[in-house]
Amino acid sequence: MAQLADFLIKTSGQAPGRSTEATVEGDASKEVHGFASLGSAKDDEIVFVRDATHAAALADSAARAVITLPGIDVGARAVLRSLRPAHDFSRLVEEFVPRRRPPPGIEAGAQVDSTATIDPTASIEAGARVGPGCRVGARTVVASNATLVADVEVGQDGWIYSGAVVREDTRIGDRVILQPGVVLGGDGFGYVPDAEGRPVAMAQRGCVVIEDDVEIGANTTVDRATLDVTRVRRGAKIDNQVQIAHNCDIGEEALIVAQTGLSGGTLVGRRAIVMAGVGTTGHLRIGEGAFIGARSGLHHDVPDGARMFGTPATAERSWHRTVAALRRLPELVRRVRRLERRLSASADEQADEQTAEPGGEPASDSFDRNAGSGDASGGDSGRD
Amino acid sequence: MAQLADFLIKTSGQAPGRSTEATVEGDASKEVHGFASLGSAKDDEIVFVRDATHAAALADSAARAVITLPGIDVGARAVLRSLRPAHDFSRLVEEFVPRRRPPPGIEAGAQVDSTATIDPTASIEAGARVGPGCRVGARTVVASNATLVADVEVGQDGWIYSGAVVREDTRIGDRVILQPGVVLGGDGFGYVPDAEGRPVAMAQRGCVVIEDDVEIGANTTVDRATLDVTRVRRGAKIDNQVQIAHNCDIGEEALIVAQTGLSGGTLVGRRAIVMAGVGTTGHLRIGEGAFIGARSGLHHDVPDGARMFGTPATAERSWHRTVAALRRLPELVRRVRRLERRLSASADEQADEQTAEPGGEPASDSFDRNAGSGDASGGDSGRD
Amino acid sequence: MAQLADFLIKTSGQAPGRSTEATVEGDASKEVHGFASLGSAKDDEIVFVRDATHAAALADSAARAVITLPGIDVGARAVLRSLRPAHDFSRLVEEFVPRRRPPPGIEAGAQVDSTATIDPTASIEAGARVGPGCRVGARTVVASNATLVADVEVGQDGWIYSGAVVREDTRIGDRVILQPGVVLGGDGFGYVPDAEGRPVAMAQRGCVVIEDDVEIGANTTVDRATLDVTRVRRGAKIDNQVQIAHNCDIGEEALIVAQTGLSGGTLVGRRAIVMAGVGTTGHLRIGEGAFIGARSGLHHDVPDGARMFGTPATAERSWHRTVAALRRLPELVRRVRRLERRLSASADEQADEQTAEPGGEPASDSFDRNAGSGDASGGDSGRD
Repeated sequence: MAQLADFLIKTSGQAPGRSTEATVEGDASKEVHGFASLGSAKDDEIVFVRDATHAAALADSAARAVITLPGIDVGARAVLRSLRPAHDFSRLVEEFVPRRRPPPGIEAGAQVDSTATIDPTASIEAGARVGPGCRVGARTVVASNATLVADVEVGQDGWIYSGAVVREDTRIGDRVILQPGVVLGGDGFGYVPDAEGRPVAMAQRGCVVIEDDVEIGANTTVDRATLDVTRVRRGAKIDNQVQIAHNCDIGEEALIVAQTGLSGGTLVGRRAIVMAGVGTTGHLRIGEGAFIGARSGLHHDVPDGARMFGTPATAERSWHRTVAALRRLPELVRRVRRLERRLSASADEQADEQTAEPGGEPASDSFDRNAGSGDASGGDSGRD
Repeated sequence: MAQLADFLIKTSGQAPGRSTEATVEGDASKEVHGFASLGSAKDDEIVFVRDATHAAALADSAARAVITLPGIDVGARAVLRSLRPAHDFSRLVEEFVPRRRPPPGIEAGAQVDSTATIDPTASIEAGARVGPGCRVGARTVVASNATLVADVEVGQDGWIYSGAVVREDTRIGDRVILQPGVVLGGDGFGYVPDAEGRPVAMAQRGCVVIEDDVEIGANTTVDRATLDVTRVRRGAKIDNQVQIAHNCDIGEEALIVAQTGLSGGTLVGRRAIVMAGVGTTGHLRIGEGAFIGARSGLHHDVPDGARMFGTPATAERSWHRTVAALRRLPELVRRVRRLERRLSASADEQADEQTAEPGGEPASDSFDRNAGSGDASGGDSGRD
Repeated sequence: MAQLADFLIKTSGQAPGRSTEATVEGDASKEVHGFASLGSAKDDEIVFVRDATHAAALADSAARAVITLPGIDVGARAVLRSLRPAHDFSRLVEEFVPRRRPPPGIEAGAQVDSTATIDPTASIEAGARVGPGCRVGARTVVASNATLVADVEVGQDGWIYSGAVVREDTRIGDRVILQPGVVLGGDGFGYVPDAEGRPVAMAQRGCVVIEDDVEIGANTTVDRATLDVTRVRRGAKIDNQVQIAHNCDIGEEALIVAQTGLSGGTLVGRRAIVMAGVGTTGHLRIGEGAFIGARSGLHHDVPDGARMFGTPATAERSWHRTVAALRRLPELVRRVRRLERRLSASADEQADEQTAEPGGEPASDSFDRNAGSGDASGGDSGRD
């Protein structure tokens, strides 16, 4: 614990005891031997509590050391107080449990073209392919069975995991991580009819640019532009199995969650958040800081800061009202039928509505025939 | 046929003629040279008929031998009667048309680290990579261009197909099949803001455990846990392009169909069935034996045995009623408008509702202006 | 420009000046040094304008040469008039900016089985695997870390990109492109219960056939048939991350857009268009020339030429009406409540409906409690 506290205090630039950024309470001399989640922690492991809503679970945890916000009750545990417990916990993990790295150099069995330029501190594992004209920067890992096709540039401190494929002319910045199976630079899906109406591919001769600090999840695909650039800007984070079509532009520090598909030319603003399973029609713009709910289908531009949900996507409040109303739709049908009956009864009494309404349609209730309404008077209008 | 009958009877542990598990009727001496579907079978091939609903197609099939349930009319064909025709047919296929296997041993061109342990009966093909500290069990195949990164354990009788990538510290049981392009152990998608609000990755140092008899489809991704274990339990079967996020726990013999995405910490109960294209919000539980309809979006826990459909998902009966009502929604709108007119007419007669209702809104019919209702009196309220 | 015009005129089989297929206007001697999009073009680059809706952007473009339809105003620019500007532009790009190809032959570091047959003009790159019994045709590229497992046939002029995996017995025609990470021939997802109810895989011993001129996008998966053939017919184009299950049959020149999933046995007709993110239940047929809107969920056959949208999918007109009505559903709820109040008031006056309606349900308005209606009389019926 003392060691951890020293580290945390040092890295957050705070003197001990001076700031909630990193103050130590309790027995700071306690030895900590590992990191764990609240539910699985053993006595000698340290945990973190993100916020007050997770604090209750701490009472049942065996952990005797914790990183959490100021003001959260930790019982008798040693505690590092931090304004960003998850962030600081993560930095501790990375410092004390570093990721295993291959040694620098080109391992025997790697397939490196003679015209490629590899920084001597980079690691090219056996089975990796670095094609003609490629450049790999300092301390970057190109793992086994990863492929840089040709004229690909990768900056410093990157990690191209196994099975990732980066096609020709792609430019990748510093500190970029491509998880296994990522494909960059595949041809975009664009076809035009020939004289006989057969689909013929539009030549896709643009490229992909991945800026610094971008991380891309497993089996995600980013297509090359038709003529210009498909760009993922600095600090954007993209989850697994996302599809980014040709000519998209993903803003700085945007987050795109799994299985979302962005059609050609979609623009995503800075720090926008696109949740899982979203789809967009082509050439629309998602504004800066916008939030798109999971599984939404976007057909129109989204203003900066807007929150959109549903398919077709609408503003959050409108969507909540529609979903709530939808849930009660069968009830609404019954209410309308009741109104119709009451009005007919009333009309019968007044004897002024005996004939069928011109152009009217029979009321139908077949859609809730299974609802036990006991009303056998309605008929299926047959129009569906 | 005789040979097939012998095999089937032997393997199902039944004496001939004693049980519907495997009785032979018709000319058991007929030669059978292959297996086929009902539609494509030639005269010397054997087919299966799963149940009575497929029996009609048998009449048009050229096949002279069939495996099917007791009681189904097969005409003059030779027949093996079985209580599980599809299952027994499949076992016959596997026995008589074994999958081609590479020979045991490490093929020239395989990249096996010197610290890896390979059972002598395992097959490591050319271009496969087995990294430091890995262990591969008896009769397991690691195919060309598959990658076991480091400290990966794979049990007996498994098959890691080409292009699959298993990252460090993953543990895989016996009889596990990873189809091409599967990724196990990619980093989970978890980011926290730093002091400037920039997303910073939470360290992902947990692992993935795949238990015995699990099968995983092509290009499916299973992320490693943040701190603990992402687990796929014994006998679960997962289809292609499924996304399983960090810290999920997939129950024994659960079935997860293609392109479904399970958010972080989703728990799937034993023998639950999740159909294609489903999405879940994080940290929910799908009960044992539950059934989730295709393309559903789950926001809440699902009880054991429940059947859920739609987005947001609701119980099956409720969903059917909502879908049916939704289909008639334009009609309902017309019915309400008619009621409004009748009530206004009635009110006019009574002369007691001449003034606009306070706070009321004009009736709108612009949404069915194309419906040919002939009603031109309504206007677009302009609120959408 | 003169050179381009010569080429275009030659390849379109038209004599100069004779046809709108390829007539040159303006200064045909102008030098053109590259191809660009309207927005990024420099002075010496040529652009194309697809149709009149894009013509306005031309005015702001620096390009002094353009390919476009007859009749579109291009100012003082040199222009090639064409009836298919995009198509002809693309052919020019391909002619003048050819894709970089690896040299013919088997590169050192390729893993080619001794029983494979490779045309001497084919290119097998380092790290590629061509397994036993495979055949690779003239001028076809098998790129680094691509895998042809066994007994795979690939025709002429194909391109199997890095990371693609083609499993045993797949047959691939001429001019086929598999983008990185494509998986052909994975086992279909079919399980039957054994005597204890455990899921057991149905043997998948059919194959995949990819006909001539098919193109398949990155990380798309096509499963082998259970017993027969999963077929993608001549000229079909499939985008990224599409899932095509066992026994599907994709029609000639059909287009399947990204992240669509076709369940087992789906038939797609000739020149049908299936937009992104669509899902189908098994064994249905999409008719010739049908159009399926993005994110639709199909439960039934689709007639030839039909246009379907939504989940469950309905005909386009019906879907538009439902979506419009859905957007106004909260308003409809208020209108019904107003009718109920008016009728109650009317009934009160007539003193003939004082008692609760037998079997009736209380009107509920809790779903728009946030809508500011000022109506506090309703209660949540609690049935949801």
